[in-house]
Amino acid sequence: MVTETSLSPIATFHSARRGRYEVAHQGVLALGEGTIVVEPGHNFEQGLQGLKGFDRLWLVYLFHLNQTEDAPPVMVKPPRFEHKVGVFATRSPHRPNPIGITPARLLHVAGRMLTVAQADLLDQTPIVDIKPYLPFCDAFPEAAVGWGGLAPTPYRLLWSEGARERVAEIASAHDLRLDHYAEVQLQLDPTDTSRKRIRATEQGFALDFREWSLHYEVRGEAQEVWIEQVTERPEFPGPSSLK
Amino acid sequence: MVTETSLSPIATFHSARRGRYEVAHQGVLALGEGTIVVEPGHNFEQGLQGLKGFDRLWLVYLFHLNQTEDAPPVMVKPPRFEHKVGVFATRSPHRPNPIGITPARLLHVAGRMLTVAQADLLDQTPIVDIKPYLPFCDAFPEAAVGWGGLAPTPYRLLWSEGARERVAEIASAHDLRLDHYAEVQLQLDPTDTSRKRIRATEQGFALDFREWSLHYEVRGEAQEVWIEQVTERPEFPGPSSLK
Repeated sequence: MVTETSLSPIATFHSARRGRYEVAHQGVLALGEGTIVVEPGHNFEQGLQGLKGFDRLWLVYLFHLNQTEDAPPVMVKPPRFEHKVGVFATRSPHRPNPIGITPARLLHVAGRMLTVAQADLLDQTPIVDIKPYLPFCDAFPEAAVGWGGLAPTPYRLLWSEGARERVAEIASAHDLRLDHYAEVQLQLDPTDTSRKRIRATEQGFALDFREWSLHYEVRGEAQEVWIEQVTERPEFPGPSSLK
Repeated sequence: MVTETSLSPIATFHSARRGRYEVAHQGVLALGEGTIVVEPGHNFEQGLQGLKGFDRLWLVYLFHLNQTEDAPPVMVKPPRFEHKVGVFATRSPHRPNPIGITPARLLHVAGRMLTVAQADLLDQTPIVDIKPYLPFCDAFPEAAVGWGGLAPTPYRLLWSEGARERVAEIASAHDLRLDHYAEVQLQLDPTDTSRKRIRATEQGFALDFREWSLHYEVRGEAQEVWIEQVTERPEFPGPSSLK
């Protein structure tokens, strides 16, 4: 029996999303585009020939930030679920083998580069395989799901002009994308104050992120989150509060 | 950047299909059941908790018979297609990293064992990950496909009583599954005599397999292959003709 197999990345993913807290939990929830650049020197650009015309492709990738764990837990608590379940019944990134799959939308092919959308990957993610998405053998829209696998309905984030400007300033000055963070945190369950960084306020809710707070209202019927303003947190304990 | 990552199998696949020529080209075309047994000693059986209730799961596996190639070709000719295309635009098992994915049907979970159907895997295939199939992020039935990704319509194989009995005798005496072989070879394009082992005969067609020939008729409108008899090939050149 095969005991161990080594994989070498065939490509690297590039996007503006650099921290784990900036990446959606599933590809279909991911906003923004990314690019995939295949490694030089192996004729991999030829290997991309024939991908044009496919709407989607499978990216098989490595959870490269999670490779230091010797034995990740076999039971995990998924987001928005109250119990632990077995890791093989989840899409948790902390797995015995740090392998992920995501069916990204293919937008463009040019030379060694693919442009894709709806990829829930961090910048610099190593990609070990690319395969065409074939609906006749990959798509099972009626497949039943167990414990908590049902589709969430994401909230749409709306920004006041002031909040949008402040977020852009912080991005320039501190290289921190509060907007990406807010998308990931508030797309699902924005009113769940049992979560670490969400709290109820007099006007609505606040999401804390290092020395800043995003203040927002939730419009449940419209599935909208209205982000009114960004304030500083005088009580901010230090740069170690975000992991 | 990550240069190399080692994977260890978390489970092994078991089925009656032992040779490459016995395995369907896609999971949805695969007949018969298989079992997955997770490795002992890592609490992986706990990792399966929560899988009950899912109709399908992703098996991420290794093409373990294809790991000796140093540099597999980047251009490949898919079955039933006349041109070469890039390997990343195909599901070819000969890939830079020998990784496959298949969304098998989950039938049963018990202890360290899963029973599945529609898995296009060989006996002894090492499995490196199991993930639940989530239609909301995995199923895109309308996704466009390029060059040759359209669903084939498989033929149904029907056997005469005599052919069925002869195949059972050969299975007992030689441990060779002519029925598995015939399924894989004749499910698609059974009249294509440009393929190596198919030839036209006076009565219809013959599929050669080592020292035997399966004689069959093709009923195109009904999408049926009628396998009439199994004969010996007096001209059989020796045991090396099958790869």
